[in-house]
Amino acid sequence: MECKPIGIIHTPFQEAAGTPIQPAKGKGVKGWIEIDAAYVDGLKDLDGFERIWVLFWCDRANPFKLHIKPYMDTQIRGLFSTRSPSRPNPIGMSCVKLIGIDGNRLKIEDVDMLDGSPLLDIKPYVAKFDTFDVQRSGWTDTVSGETKADNRFFKEDQK
Amino acid sequence: MECKPIGIIHTPFQEAAGTPIQPAKGKGVKGWIEIDAAYVDGLKDLDGFERIWVLFWCDRANPFKLHIKPYMDTQIRGLFSTRSPSRPNPIGMSCVKLIGIDGNRLKIEDVDMLDGSPLLDIKPYVAKFDTFDVQRSGWTDTVSGETKADNRFFKEDQK
Repeated sequence: MECKPIGIIHTPFQEAAGTPIQPAKGKGVKGWIEIDAAYVDGLKDLDGFERIWVLFWCDRANPFKLHIKPYMDTQIRGLFSTRSPSRPNPIGMSCVKLIGIDGNRLKIEDVDMLDGSPLLDIKPYVAKFDTFDVQRSGWTDTVSGETKADNRFFKEDQK
Repeated sequence: MECKPIGIIHTPFQEAAGTPIQPAKGKGVKGWIEIDAAYVDGLKDLDGFERIWVLFWCDRANPFKLHIKPYMDTQIRGLFSTRSPSRPNPIGMSCVKLIGIDGNRLKIEDVDMLDGSPLLDIKPYVAKFDTFDVQRSGWTDTVSGETKADNRFFKEDQK
């Protein structure tokens, strides 16, 4: 199961510290996606969507641990109950605002990715597929916590 | 960027035909996830969440094309404006209901994956991160279409 980059993500963030922990915490922060020329034809019809899912490789996340302290909490939590970028398969998933498409460039907003992150996939955000009315979001229901990341999950040699 | 399976997904679906096209179209359909023993400790605290994102490898999707006719429509659309499993990086993303966890087994509902799909990641569905109030969902706003898949994106040698 080999992933190949299909483009590159451009954002204002060179390191984890100071990066919004999620798109919902990075409202209005601008970035852009440069998709490889070979895939541009696949962008047809995407401009009708207000938001898109961006899948990317968290290439600067440090090796995962199964018990971690997430940004938003002071307690140790199980990795899979968090959105930490340090995972067995470090695939990031961000739902960003799609502002416009110009050739192989997508203007986006609400970005929370590091600059230069390899793009794996783009999927449309489809309201009738992706909106779920949940009553329980586990430990995240009882914390307010941080809106910006620090370098705890950032690769040592990148600091 | 090499992905490794961290478990396996069990569902009632042996082929694409008849599989719900999305979790939202497979309400109540039961399945389970078997996570490798090495990762069980990372499931701590996950049981507090009502839904989880399951990332998996669409191992039986046929090679991608940039222009396709999606299940829900009669028109040709750009691949990245669809949720087709046949993609440059065939990573599926399903938000399913978490019913319970017993050791290395997660009981889930609302499944739309093929039986035996390799598990890549589990992330919690966090209401304040994952719910977006969008006005436009592109071409999907004007179609009702199918709720079940057929074999159009299913590998030839699996049919």
